[in-house]
Amino acid sequence: MDEVNYVSGETRVFAIVGHPIEQVRSPEMITAEMVRRGHKAILIPLDVRPEDFETSLRALMRVQNLDGLVFTIPFKQRACALASELGAQAQTVGAINALARGRDERWFGDIFDGLGCVEAFRRRGVSFRDQRVMLIGAGGAGRAIAAAVAHQGPRALRIFDIERGKAMQLVEDVRKIDARIEAAYGEPVVEGIDILLNASPVGMLSDPRMPIDAARIPTEIIVFDAIVKPEQTKLLTLAGECGCRVIRGREMMHGQISKVVDYFEAHNRERAALKS
Amino acid sequence: MDEVNYVSGETRVFAIVGHPIEQVRSPEMITAEMVRRGHKAILIPLDVRPEDFETSLRALMRVQNLDGLVFTIPFKQRACALASELGAQAQTVGAINALARGRDERWFGDIFDGLGCVEAFRRRGVSFRDQRVMLIGAGGAGRAIAAAVAHQGPRALRIFDIERGKAMQLVEDVRKIDARIEAAYGEPVVEGIDILLNASPVGMLSDPRMPIDAARIPTEIIVFDAIVKPEQTKLLTLAGECGCRVIRGREMMHGQISKVVDYFEAHNRERAALKS
Repeated sequence: MDEVNYVSGETRVFAIVGHPIEQVRSPEMITAEMVRRGHKAILIPLDVRPEDFETSLRALMRVQNLDGLVFTIPFKQRACALASELGAQAQTVGAINALARGRDERWFGDIFDGLGCVEAFRRRGVSFRDQRVMLIGAGGAGRAIAAAVAHQGPRALRIFDIERGKAMQLVEDVRKIDARIEAAYGEPVVEGIDILLNASPVGMLSDPRMPIDAARIPTEIIVFDAIVKPEQTKLLTLAGECGCRVIRGREMMHGQISKVVDYFEAHNRERAALKS
Repeated sequence: MDEVNYVSGETRVFAIVGHPIEQVRSPEMITAEMVRRGHKAILIPLDVRPEDFETSLRALMRVQNLDGLVFTIPFKQRACALASELGAQAQTVGAINALARGRDERWFGDIFDGLGCVEAFRRRGVSFRDQRVMLIGAGGAGRAIAAAVAHQGPRALRIFDIERGKAMQLVEDVRKIDARIEAAYGEPVVEGIDILLNASPVGMLSDPRMPIDAARIPTEIIVFDAIVKPEQTKLLTLAGECGCRVIRGREMMHGQISKVVDYFEAHNRERAALKS
């Protein structure tokens, strides 16, 4: 092989920044979506140490053919400071996962985790309107999901986190978005709810636990787990056994990728540089 | 397409840094060579403005999965300051085109343009030993080629540059490498020489000129042009018409790519990080 056909001097560069970085899936997935849409672009992984974050990122943003950045653990909060302008979701959540280069060296940041979750439900024909939702986890993913769901007009949103203060804060934030929502802190339950969302890390990788202490889940509840590895968490296995509809982290990721690439396109188009 | 198979969170990142950057060929060629050798690696283009060079590069070198850099116009000289240690060619030339991450955050720099030219001649079975060489251009490429050729024991090396001072300095440098070489400054000629090397930018892209004012070139002269775009410069066309053997910039590039990847492998192996 003399030359590869997927990178050249004309390639527009995007990067996901995290620490560690080996586990991320955005390089293969976001690159695929950009290529599918006809862009000469690639998203590469960059492993940046926390102590280097501010300096390295400010320098990277000056690279002329770098058009967008994606942030993962532990940088989603700190990355807000890099944006010239923050989107509505990011302002509520206090974190971003996408930063797009716009005109005149301006950078636009927003967070798409929650929008990806709502998009995954929409693709399955499920609306959050008037639903009673139980959300477990009020960390980065949980905050983003709560913010996006709150904009969909649910009847109730019950939030739990092992750090009670985090959940209480998120309850407050949800009320600010829509005061009509019955928002409350509460232990995980499977009664009196229509949708169960896990946004906690419980069940990730080789963790054999469930984020909720239940032997059964009522059949009519729709169960979502944000966890991507493994695809089949113990929670989803129980939900499947109980006849519940399940929606997976991978579906949220697909929804999110689509929204993130839309966002890059919108801002890059303004500077007419991304399109091949 | 759901995922691409050429980049992931485990990819080791290399970059070519220049301004402008669209014209470079290293991304497709060096990436191909690294993949061919079994590495999970990619070389991307980075367009860095001259005023950002020092800051951006120092920051990039702190990215933990970035294992090597290649430099092109206008950074080959300035890049020397980034190296913890300079190779022999780089010390003569005063420029580098490769910077490899070694152990303990140490970076090793050397220049392979000239070695690539000598390698291209070697692959064609042509030796510089005892030959009379005319070199046009004493900029970055010309200096590198002169340094590499001077180590091959040519009989004479006549050097021209439109900036006479540059050519005179290079004549001095050649004498330091090997005092037996008849090194001299001189206008471009096609008589009394065996090998004609163009390392000037004359004839590049849409430039229709030749670096030498000649209607014919004697058949026995071997003509080399370092220019890669276009592959067929006006100089090479004339040489071909005159029945001369021609050696192209592309062949020098292949020789150079092989040497650069050897260099990255040698230094990255020390930190046992490049191999997949």
